[in-house]
Amino acid sequence: MSPSPAPAAPRPPLRVALAGIGVVGGGVVRLLETNRDLIARRAGRSIEIVAVSARDRHKDRGIDLSPYRWEDDMDALVAADDVDVVVEMIGGADGSALTLARHALGAGKALVTANKAMIAHHGLSLARLAEAKDTPLKYEAAVAGGIPVIKAIREGASANLIARVYGILNGTCNYILTQMERGGASFADALADAQAEGYAEADPTFDVDGIDAAHKLSILAALCFGTRLDIGAVTANGIRGLIAADIREAEALGHRVRLIGMAERDQNGLYQHVQPCLVPADHPLAYVPGALNAVVAEGNFVGRLFFEGAGAGAGPTASAIVADIIDIARDEYGPAFAMPVDALDAAPVADAGARVGKHYVRLIVEDRIGVLAEIATAMRDAGVSIESFIQRGTDEEDGVVIVLVTHEGPTRAIEAALAALAASDHVVGTPMRMPILAL
Amino acid sequence: MSPSPAPAAPRPPLRVALAGIGVVGGGVVRLLETNRDLIARRAGRSIEIVAVSARDRHKDRGIDLSPYRWEDDMDALVAADDVDVVVEMIGGADGSALTLARHALGAGKALVTANKAMIAHHGLSLARLAEAKDTPLKYEAAVAGGIPVIKAIREGASANLIARVYGILNGTCNYILTQMERGGASFADALADAQAEGYAEADPTFDVDGIDAAHKLSILAALCFGTRLDIGAVTANGIRGLIAADIREAEALGHRVRLIGMAERDQNGLYQHVQPCLVPADHPLAYVPGALNAVVAEGNFVGRLFFEGAGAGAGPTASAIVADIIDIARDEYGPAFAMPVDALDAAPVADAGARVGKHYVRLIVEDRIGVLAEIATAMRDAGVSIESFIQRGTDEEDGVVIVLVTHEGPTRAIEAALAALAASDHVVGTPMRMPILAL
Repeated sequence: MSPSPAPAAPRPPLRVALAGIGVVGGGVVRLLETNRDLIARRAGRSIEIVAVSARDRHKDRGIDLSPYRWEDDMDALVAADDVDVVVEMIGGADGSALTLARHALGAGKALVTANKAMIAHHGLSLARLAEAKDTPLKYEAAVAGGIPVIKAIREGASANLIARVYGILNGTCNYILTQMERGGASFADALADAQAEGYAEADPTFDVDGIDAAHKLSILAALCFGTRLDIGAVTANGIRGLIAADIREAEALGHRVRLIGMAERDQNGLYQHVQPCLVPADHPLAYVPGALNAVVAEGNFVGRLFFEGAGAGAGPTASAIVADIIDIARDEYGPAFAMPVDALDAAPVADAGARVGKHYVRLIVEDRIGVLAEIATAMRDAGVSIESFIQRGTDEEDGVVIVLVTHEGPTRAIEAALAALAASDHVVGTPMRMPILAL
Repeated sequence: MSPSPAPAAPRPPLRVALAGIGVVGGGVVRLLETNRDLIARRAGRSIEIVAVSARDRHKDRGIDLSPYRWEDDMDALVAADDVDVVVEMIGGADGSALTLARHALGAGKALVTANKAMIAHHGLSLARLAEAKDTPLKYEAAVAGGIPVIKAIREGASANLIARVYGILNGTCNYILTQMERGGASFADALADAQAEGYAEADPTFDVDGIDAAHKLSILAALCFGTRLDIGAVTANGIRGLIAADIREAEALGHRVRLIGMAERDQNGLYQHVQPCLVPADHPLAYVPGALNAVVAEGNFVGRLFFEGAGAGAGPTASAIVADIIDIARDEYGPAFAMPVDALDAAPVADAGARVGKHYVRLIVEDRIGVLAEIATAMRDAGVSIESFIQRGTDEEDGVVIVLVTHEGPTRAIEAALAALAASDHVVGTPMRMPILAL
């Protein structure tokens, strides 16, 4: 045997401080302890937790934090000479999370965060701070939990002009929709089930109204299109308006209802919208069950890429956070949004009303003479062409359910027709409109 | 307005030479031309083709190569001072592809390759050359075409102990199986269709016998488990033995037949096998249609990750190749197999016969008294426990089709039973055995 070359001197450990030790923080501690040796092999150096900080030192977290230095003041993590990376797991768009992030980057520390709200609202200013100090800002866990979709788009699909990016970005909503599919449950019952199972918060607003998905979508859009993050331009409609009949009728039409966040850039500008949609049964998003997340990116050379996995939870989120830390340990990182902030475009907001597509429309009407004519007239007057019209004669929710599928047409026309009908004495509640996802 | 900071000096272009201009090479030229400005923004520098080389200068490739320096001798690409990256698209495990790869890395050039056979057979020695010269060796396009699965596993899932990695790694076979599902076609007819559509070669051996999938699987296994590439340890059974009844009976059992490459590492060693399997209808691999590829990785923190996309073709393959080039342009790369070659384990080959699972077994038998008893006896003697037994009384392929589903048991026992039955005068042809994928 010929002698092996002398091994290179091992690199020093990467020293990590954790701020905020809740469910996710506990997952990160467990992951770094459990997979310690494996991670050191893959990263080429060991990754050491040196300090932790959270609001309540004495809370029982089910993990032993005694090996790590405790800091009551999070800024002590930033000031410490023995900290290379600060991991922000406090949450919230502003407040102490943002203060910590700014201080850490300003001090030239690497910052890893799972905080989608903070990145959606302040990602550009944080990226500027990171650029000024030439230090990494990483946020893989902020979008679609354990799925490495930030990396897949920033790097894996980097050769492509992306036409659109879309997906199931909120596991709570997908769990509720799956429950409604399986059991024919109402939204209220499915939500209660999700709350009992720990998939939904006591106040579910953030999830079911699409706000959480909107944060994630704005981040994906910036990465895919090279545009400035613009959370203010994302429109979000949640799933509260869905009734059991919507799920059933969608199924009868060969579709499934999913809350889809979609961003698309064309000559009219950038469109960013979170809303329930009908997904054709031959599209992979139709098969994403329970609390999973999934993201689709369509590139001009690669075609359609589809990524699925756990969108939340201690383990998957920790997996994404530690992947970011490993990238930093390997020195494999670059600008947070793939290019310097000054190179990002400020895309104009596209006119959503001009968007052309097929739509599902559901109305609940009083069972009386003339109602069908009223609907048909409103559609005709707004220039909406009807492909199919379904009235099964089954009563539900104080009236008769009527479902229409439109031909391709501008969203604005359908909205005009529905606004006219919503004002009618014979239409009960608010009509539901859902785009049918084009393949 | 406050003045902007002076921009950093732009980095010099990354200069690329292409070796082998077939379908994929043409795709790379088109991609780098079409998305040129976009790529320069994302990479932080422009990427320039400076030279090309192929066997036949005068072949009509449908693209204009005149802007680029032509070299008849591929080694001239290696010798050229103005080349930073050599892209190998010649193909074949050995021969001129391997020679070029060795020369390029030996000269300290970066090497990007789509060549799964070469990486499977020579990946370790090439990675050593790259390490010695501290130059990148990248091969995203070698596995699952346009899906960034090498990156997703090397980096995205890097925090996880991977229990198993598996997937649909050959689009030709998946196209054939999908055709058999849809039309009830025979293997021969579906193969002819795939050949007519350009999804299968005139000599389909490499694809339908699982050799191509085996190459890809060995690469995934090395990355997932931190083990030395060992193509010799991969067992491959292709799809030639499948008949229409297998597809039909699998469907009746709530499954679909897919050619699955699977690698799993446990205390018994490393198991690497390509074979047709029954995939349960509630597993996402059951919904992968046509010529697509899909890969599943199961990590101890992230859970199940699923990636789907185009596994071949000029556009998707070029997308993966150029993503590698962009990583190099960004200086975001590290050891080819995630860690230095010397840090990889030499995992023992697991005993495939000891593997426990449920199996689908299909026999064609003569329709005569005593055959059922013979089958039941062979199974009993080998210690195989039967969960279900189906004989529909339909003749096919010179006999009666009998399908069994076993309870969980070692593969060796089923193989022993089938070996005994294959020797029987009443069994026609070779029995088919397929594992049922465990969720």
